[in-house]
Amino acid sequence: MTPRLDAQMAFLTEACRLKSVNRATRLCDGSRYENSGEHSWHIALYALVLAEHAPQGVAIDRVIRMLLIHDLVEIDAGDAPIFGSHDATALQQDESAAADRIFGLLPADQAESLRALWEEFEANQTVDARFAKSLDRFQPPNQNLAAGGGSWTEYDVSYDRLVSRVGSKIAHGAPTLWDWINPRIRAFFGV
Amino acid sequence: MTPRLDAQMAFLTEACRLKSVNRATRLCDGSRYENSGEHSWHIALYALVLAEHAPQGVAIDRVIRMLLIHDLVEIDAGDAPIFGSHDATALQQDESAAADRIFGLLPADQAESLRALWEEFEANQTVDARFAKSLDRFQPPNQNLAAGGGSWTEYDVSYDRLVSRVGSKIAHGAPTLWDWINPRIRAFFGV
Ligand SMILES: [Ca+2]
Repeated sequence: MTPRLDAQMAFLTEACRLKSVNRATRLCDGSRYENSGEHSWHIALYALVLAEHAPQGVAIDRVIRMLLIHDLVEIDAGDAPIFGSHDATALQQDESAAADRIFGLLPADQAESLRALWEEFEANQTVDARFAKSLDRFQPPNQNLAAGGGSWTEYDVSYDRLVSRVGSKIAHGAPTLWDWINPRIRAFFGV
Repeated sequence: MTPRLDAQMAFLTEACRLKSVNRATRLCDGSRYENSGEHSWHIALYALVLAEHAPQGVAIDRVIRMLLIHDLVEIDAGDAPIFGSHDATALQQDESAAADRIFGLLPADQAESLRALWEEFEANQTVDARFAKSLDRFQPPNQNLAAGGGSWTEYDVSYDRLVSRVGSKIAHGAPTLWDWINPRIRAFFGV
C-alpha cells in the first residue's frame, strides 16, 4: 500500500491540465496564446535569473516554489485576464473552491503547506509573495513588447491603464524591474 | 546603463522559444503533444511534491533549479525522443553548441553557473542530477498511462525496451518511484 504516493501522483496527473488553460498573453513570437503551465515555468526561470534584483530578505527558492503552484487553481477557475472584466468576489470564491479540490488531492500535510504557500502568494503581503507577484506581472509586458503588442492590442490597453493594473504591482515588489521596462513600454505607447 | 539586466532579459526572452519545442509525449488527456516549456514546469512540480521520495542527500531546491534549465538547449538542438533513433555524438555536439549560445546570452558569471548546473544534469553523476534525471524519465510514462498509450503506441515500444531505456534510469535515481510505476506499466503491457 502506497497511499501517500498514490495521492501525490493523482495530484501531479491532475496538474497536467494546467497546460490546457490558455492565457490572454501571446508567446514572444506572437504565434499563439500562452498556457498557464508554460507560463509558470517561464516565471520560475525569471525568478532564478533575476534573483539579484529581488528586494532584501527575499528567499528565492521559496519564490520559485510559489510560482510553480501559483496558477494551479486555474484548472477549475480559469485564467482571469488582467485587462478583462470579472467579478472579483465570484472569482475569489471559485479559486478558493478550486484550491480545496486541487490541493486536497495531496496528503493532508502537503495539501496544507502548499495551500498556505498559494494563499501567501494571493495575499501579496510578504516580501517573497510581493516579488513573486511582481514577476507574474513583469513577464507579460515583456512578451507583449516582443510580440509587437500582443494582449495590449487585443484588449485596447492604454499606458495609464497598464501602469495602474500592472506597473504599480511591479514597482511595489521589484522596483528595479519596473525602472527597466517602463521606458520600453513608454516608447511602445509613444508617451 | 543596465548591461547585466539587459543580458538577463535577452536570455529570458530567448527562453520563451522552448514553449515551441514539441516533445514526443502527449498531454495526460492525449489532446496534443507536450512542449518542453510546460514539461519543465511539470517535472519541477514533480520534484517539489515528491521530494520525500528522493534518496538521502538530495537538495530539492537544486533539483528544481536544474529541471527549470535542463531542456533549454532544445531551443537550438530540438528534443530527441527517447525511443527515436539519433546520432548520440552529433546530438551532444549540437547541445553543447546550443549551451554556448543560449547560456552565453547571460552575464558571464551566470552563464558559467547555469551551464555548470546543466552539465551536472547531463553527466548524471551527483545525487541531485540522478534524482532530476529520474523525474525527467518518470513523468512521460505517467502521461502515457493517463493517455492510454501515447508515445509508446506511436513508437511501438515494448515493455523490455521501456525498462532498458527509461526504467533503469528511474530505478537508479528514484527506486521508490520505479517500484510504484513498474506494476502499472506491466499491467498496461500485459506482462
Ligand atoms: Ca529532453
